[in-house]
Amino acid sequence: MGGDKGPAEVVAGVGLALKYFGPEAQILLLGKERLLKLLLKKERLVEEPRVNILHASQMVAMDDKPRVALRRKRNASMFRAIEAVREARAQAMVSCGNTGCLIASGTIRLRPLPGVERPALATIMPYADGYFILLDAGANPEMAPASFVHNAILGNEYAKNAFSLEHPRVGLLTIGTEEGKGTAKIDQAHELLKGMRGLIDYKGLIEGFQVFSDTVDVVLCDGFVGNIALKMLESFVMMLKKHLKDEVTKTPTRWAGVLLSLGMFKKIKDRFNPSNYGGAPLLGLSGNVIKAHGSSDRYAIMNALLIAFKMVRFEQKDEMVALITEANQRIHKLIGPNAFKVF
Amino acid sequence: MGGDKGPAEVVAGVGLALKYFGPEAQILLLGKERLLKLLLKKERLVEEPRVNILHASQMVAMDDKPRVALRRKRNASMFRAIEAVREARAQAMVSCGNTGCLIASGTIRLRPLPGVERPALATIMPYADGYFILLDAGANPEMAPASFVHNAILGNEYAKNAFSLEHPRVGLLTIGTEEGKGTAKIDQAHELLKGMRGLIDYKGLIEGFQVFSDTVDVVLCDGFVGNIALKMLESFVMMLKKHLKDEVTKTPTRWAGVLLSLGMFKKIKDRFNPSNYGGAPLLGLSGNVIKAHGSSDRYAIMNALLIAFKMVRFEQKDEMVALITEANQRIHKLIGPNAFKVF
Repeated sequence: MGGDKGPAEVVAGVGLALKYFGPEAQILLLGKERLLKLLLKKERLVEEPRVNILHASQMVAMDDKPRVALRRKRNASMFRAIEAVREARAQAMVSCGNTGCLIASGTIRLRPLPGVERPALATIMPYADGYFILLDAGANPEMAPASFVHNAILGNEYAKNAFSLEHPRVGLLTIGTEEGKGTAKIDQAHELLKGMRGLIDYKGLIEGFQVFSDTVDVVLCDGFVGNIALKMLESFVMMLKKHLKDEVTKTPTRWAGVLLSLGMFKKIKDRFNPSNYGGAPLLGLSGNVIKAHGSSDRYAIMNALLIAFKMVRFEQKDEMVALITEANQRIHKLIGPNAFKVF
Repeated sequence: MGGDKGPAEVVAGVGLALKYFGPEAQILLLGKERLLKLLLKKERLVEEPRVNILHASQMVAMDDKPRVALRRKRNASMFRAIEAVREARAQAMVSCGNTGCLIASGTIRLRPLPGVERPALATIMPYADGYFILLDAGANPEMAPASFVHNAILGNEYAKNAFSLEHPRVGLLTIGTEEGKGTAKIDQAHELLKGMRGLIDYKGLIEGFQVFSDTVDVVLCDGFVGNIALKMLESFVMMLKKHLKDEVTKTPTRWAGVLLSLGMFKKIKDRFNPSNYGGAPLLGLSGNVIKAHGSSDRYAIMNALLIAFKMVRFEQKDEMVALITEANQRIHKLIGPNAFKVF
């Protein structure tokens, strides 16, 4: 029921995704049953055996505060979807609703994997000739040094699946690649990451300007930095697009010129369009939760569902827990329990 | 002597700036005298009475570490320029060299203004219809809550000069505009900033996506966040430009189209070209220090010199110290000396 474009767009996205899914896939829609039935009818999905509705009488609003919503809106579609994952009625859930409420309910109801402190939001970002994963994008604004290691392992496994890489390159984002130039927390995280040989291919510290230049496949940062940097980038791109549009319409020659090169603009727009990357998984939980952008259109929803499907298919929870356990043992040897404290 | 393009480009920038300066302006070039004389000859500036050379036998390299360079390279052009400001032989200095060394030598030799803990690097950024100032862009990666207040006052005065605004709007960058959603440090800084009525027009918390949408004129963040976000943006723009160039050359139609709309592309490029903003002042020191981008071309140098000139002309050190003193009294009342501690 969430997202800026409302449930009609979500149901349309489901329709698109079903074309890619085999007969074994099942999609459970959570929300107001009557409304969802109407929307399924509109999309000609009423007879679709792979779609089911589970009624949820309430919904989380975009400005709801997690603690309040969790108490007062137990029947919200988002929370019912989390319960469906918890009860193994679903193997993954996708939401384009309130991020704070999704992270809070996911963490509280599904619990982090054994050994993981807190989940991380992992975003796929494009550069000219490829993609990288940035995490954390906002789930965990004040991270303990050990959480950078957990995120490295979670992001590494995700990069293997998402990009079909055998040995993704992992980097830690800071403001200068000389050791000791960043913050005390980054220094500690860097020391820990250097001790994870065999678990990840740690390439060391990277700076902001290396992010879009194929230096690493997994970019580690805390949720505060990640969220701000991604939102600034996104708003910069939107501003640039608007500015370009305004400038194009100023003279007919410009119009003509841009029309001639329209194929190129479309291609570039597609490449950097967030819809084409869709969902950001909340990694490190005992269940699969995928956050789609609040402004998701049907293509973004479709892509988020495809990511969910891929995550379920490649899920290796036991292996992940084993990796985290090994990492935690090394962390204890390297720094001790302080590495798990936020400072 | 610094910068990726070397001293020839700096001298060319001086030539451009002199066209805007009156007869009272004096430019002191610090570096290898013989080389600088040659370059002045090339730019036909040998007879220029407003240009003088001060010989400096060493130079700071881009990969020099501040502590080492300060000890071993006392005759470096950068450090001699700082000394020239300290001895009042110059009223401002511009450098496109090693940022870390510039911040360290500026802070140690010129000292922060009374009441200011550490200086802040202030960058001017463009959006579709205007500009904003972001600080700190990297001088102070681990900031105490009180430093956000100092930077608010420093950035506010700079915005008044740079944008000719009477009451610049000031915002604090975080990951959610509800109070308590960011970090403990941001919460404290927010509390302090709310207590600065009359000194600044504090508009409260802002998110990353509001930065390019004319919400505030001064964006406050710590140097860690500011540096990473700016470098990511810059590298994204460079990547996009390269990608566009590659795509354009793929078909002759695209070429033709872009040629027709070339005026527009040039205009947009100029608007978002860092050269047109040039220098980032290191605010809060007892002397004027302006950091030009390492990759500065002659236009960027010219603009940095124009900023330096403007800063000298509008300098109101006593007023600034009075504002900081008033702010510090309020900070002590609100939170006490803990507000000055980094945590």
